[in-house]
Amino acid sequence: MAVGLIAPQSLPAIAGIRIGAVSAGLYGKPRPDLALIELAENSTCAAVFTRNAFAAAPVIVAREHLQREGVRYCLINAGNANAGTGTAGLENARRCCTAAAGRDRAESVLPFSTGVIGEPLPIAKIEAALPALHAALDEDNWLALAGAIMTTDTVAKGLSHTVEIDGVPVTVTGTAKGAGMIRPDMATMLAFIATDAAIEQPLLDDMLRRAVAKSFNRICVDGDMSTNDACVLMASGKAPLPLLRDASAPACQILQEAVDTVAAGLARAIVRDGEGATKFITVSVEEGATEVECLAAAYAVATSPLVKTAFFASDPNWGRILAAVGRAGLRDLDINRVSLYLDEVCIASYGGRDPSYTEEAGRRVMQRDEIRMRILLGRGEAAETVWTTDLSHEYVRINAEYRT
Amino acid sequence: MAVGLIAPQSLPAIAGIRIGAVSAGLYGKPRPDLALIELAENSTCAAVFTRNAFAAAPVIVAREHLQREGVRYCLINAGNANAGTGTAGLENARRCCTAAAGRDRAESVLPFSTGVIGEPLPIAKIEAALPALHAALDEDNWLALAGAIMTTDTVAKGLSHTVEIDGVPVTVTGTAKGAGMIRPDMATMLAFIATDAAIEQPLLDDMLRRAVAKSFNRICVDGDMSTNDACVLMASGKAPLPLLRDASAPACQILQEAVDTVAAGLARAIVRDGEGATKFITVSVEEGATEVECLAAAYAVATSPLVKTAFFASDPNWGRILAAVGRAGLRDLDINRVSLYLDEVCIASYGGRDPSYTEEAGRRVMQRDEIRMRILLGRGEAAETVWTTDLSHEYVRINAEYRT
Repeated sequence: MAVGLIAPQSLPAIAGIRIGAVSAGLYGKPRPDLALIELAENSTCAAVFTRNAFAAAPVIVAREHLQREGVRYCLINAGNANAGTGTAGLENARRCCTAAAGRDRAESVLPFSTGVIGEPLPIAKIEAALPALHAALDEDNWLALAGAIMTTDTVAKGLSHTVEIDGVPVTVTGTAKGAGMIRPDMATMLAFIATDAAIEQPLLDDMLRRAVAKSFNRICVDGDMSTNDACVLMASGKAPLPLLRDASAPACQILQEAVDTVAAGLARAIVRDGEGATKFITVSVEEGATEVECLAAAYAVATSPLVKTAFFASDPNWGRILAAVGRAGLRDLDINRVSLYLDEVCIASYGGRDPSYTEEAGRRVMQRDEIRMRILLGRGEAAETVWTTDLSHEYVRINAEYRT
Repeated sequence: MAVGLIAPQSLPAIAGIRIGAVSAGLYGKPRPDLALIELAENSTCAAVFTRNAFAAAPVIVAREHLQREGVRYCLINAGNANAGTGTAGLENARRCCTAAAGRDRAESVLPFSTGVIGEPLPIAKIEAALPALHAALDEDNWLALAGAIMTTDTVAKGLSHTVEIDGVPVTVTGTAKGAGMIRPDMATMLAFIATDAAIEQPLLDDMLRRAVAKSFNRICVDGDMSTNDACVLMASGKAPLPLLRDASAPACQILQEAVDTVAAGLARAIVRDGEGATKFITVSVEEGATEVECLAAAYAVATSPLVKTAFFASDPNWGRILAAVGRAGLRDLDINRVSLYLDEVCIASYGGRDPSYTEEAGRRVMQRDEIRMRILLGRGEAAETVWTTDLSHEYVRINAEYRT
């Protein structure tokens, strides 16, 4: 039921990044559920993780290993989140790394898990599958990766963007799974993005943070936050270009835009595949005094169950939207300067119903399955955008029946 | 479908407080929809209002009038919130006050409206009904008030508590409507509480704030906030007792407890009647470092759609509860000290599943329609409690179909 989302038919390889995916039997049925990403020597790797205090064991271990030099592998399993599993969970996450590293140091492996919380990780199955996983490594396996990390996703997610830097084509390819904050107990969002550019570590860290801020950190479905969220950016350095190290260089800006494009596309794909989603809604708050207040207002609207049920019902119940803006905590907000648009229709102006507005126009725009909401605060020049879904019967059904 | 809630059969009168309720034709069908509360001369009156920036016109006018001395009337209409109505709405709210005041000053009237947002207030119908409303004034009309202010409430809500101060019985009677933050567009929660004690204004203000902090400000259903919320505390001074002015006096403490009891009972009644509620859930967070962090954790859990759908499904999906605590922003939370109980069942301890826990025990307790959740943070002595509901199919249906 994903909104306007189809699975990629192919995903361009990244020189220096090899991928394997196999079935380790972590689900009742045979399906790819274990994947390995191998980074060429001298690659750089950046990662950001959930800020949830109940971080899963693999998140804790991956954070530790990221402190060391030289990440060579990302090992990802679906079917089990290894979260809420205590010290046994930490031991299992470390054993995964040892098994995946082969003759390398265990610290060169970043582990990732996604699936059910609170169940012991089937470590023996993972260890048994690792030889086959190493044997499967191939640069042309991004689609297999996209499939192996899926849990309740209905569509595999992947995106690639190629730019030219000093006449040399540079590719950014990425895949993601999950639905952001929709499914914390499915432990949840993972994204892996790679490029063949050579990027110095501090710049790569910075590049990832910038991309995530405007993509994965701008989506929401139900306001919940996973225990396992992670996003990884890898740079293999195989493209014939000098090492990038200066964020202000034109080459870096071109590459940043490419990374941003892939990250934002993957983030929106996660929302489009949100549980029970029947609508894809872009919430833009403009004319704010600061970006912080724009974001507060956008999230207040995007997480409001009343706004989201109104979208599900295609009901232009604009009072709910203004009420959500009103409780976002904006200091000295003058409601008489606030306007509201749904696509081309001006719903409210000067804090009340716009004189030109008709219920028919509102119903017409609400019927669409992709809607852009613009909230104009009339007090500055800052703007922020968040992507979200409606709240449907199906959301309640999926999350009520998930374990039954 | 209110959970464990029945309408009061009688509500004790408060000497000096007269009430009238009539049908002004604000609904398509005849039903009481307009009420007037008259306070005896020299009564005191305190009120708190929504903090929503999109406060409705009557809230703005009531705040103004409360600054003056001598509130004599509260005028309440159902069927129309007079919110999102701009300057015409403000004019209508003032006209209501003029009409209700009769020969008194318009400033002696506090107006309250509840119902649909964004529609013009039918001021002529209200003005036409006022003579009948004055004629209906009677001390013994609390049940009529409880009925007249209902909107989508399924059960009328009222509560009374009598205490003895220096041998004199003092009564606190109250009524409320709505469902707190469930129904902002129904513009939403109103509560009127009165006592026959004599209470000086600053103390009355303080007494109301204390009561609200532990009652109406401790409930949530969907995290939304109304444009019209208001809670009023009136003291007629008709009981043969000296004027209360010192919060530390034993008499004040007795009365504060009575007001707290009535406010908390009404607040819980609102949750029990929450839209689509099938369960009434008490969320207590204990052993916190501060009350602020306990409250943050309690609200994170109480507003989590994933936690609420799990309760609807009677699914002991404790990972969702811990994940919600984990994202509440508690500084340096040591998850290895966190425990979780549902009623008598210890679900999690030391941050993971308790060794004694069985899925059967979890399912058994989750079947109940009233459940007390205790989250022990293991880092202090502060505690806070919040009341909430589950999230059901019915909630989505009601809020999706509300205007159709």
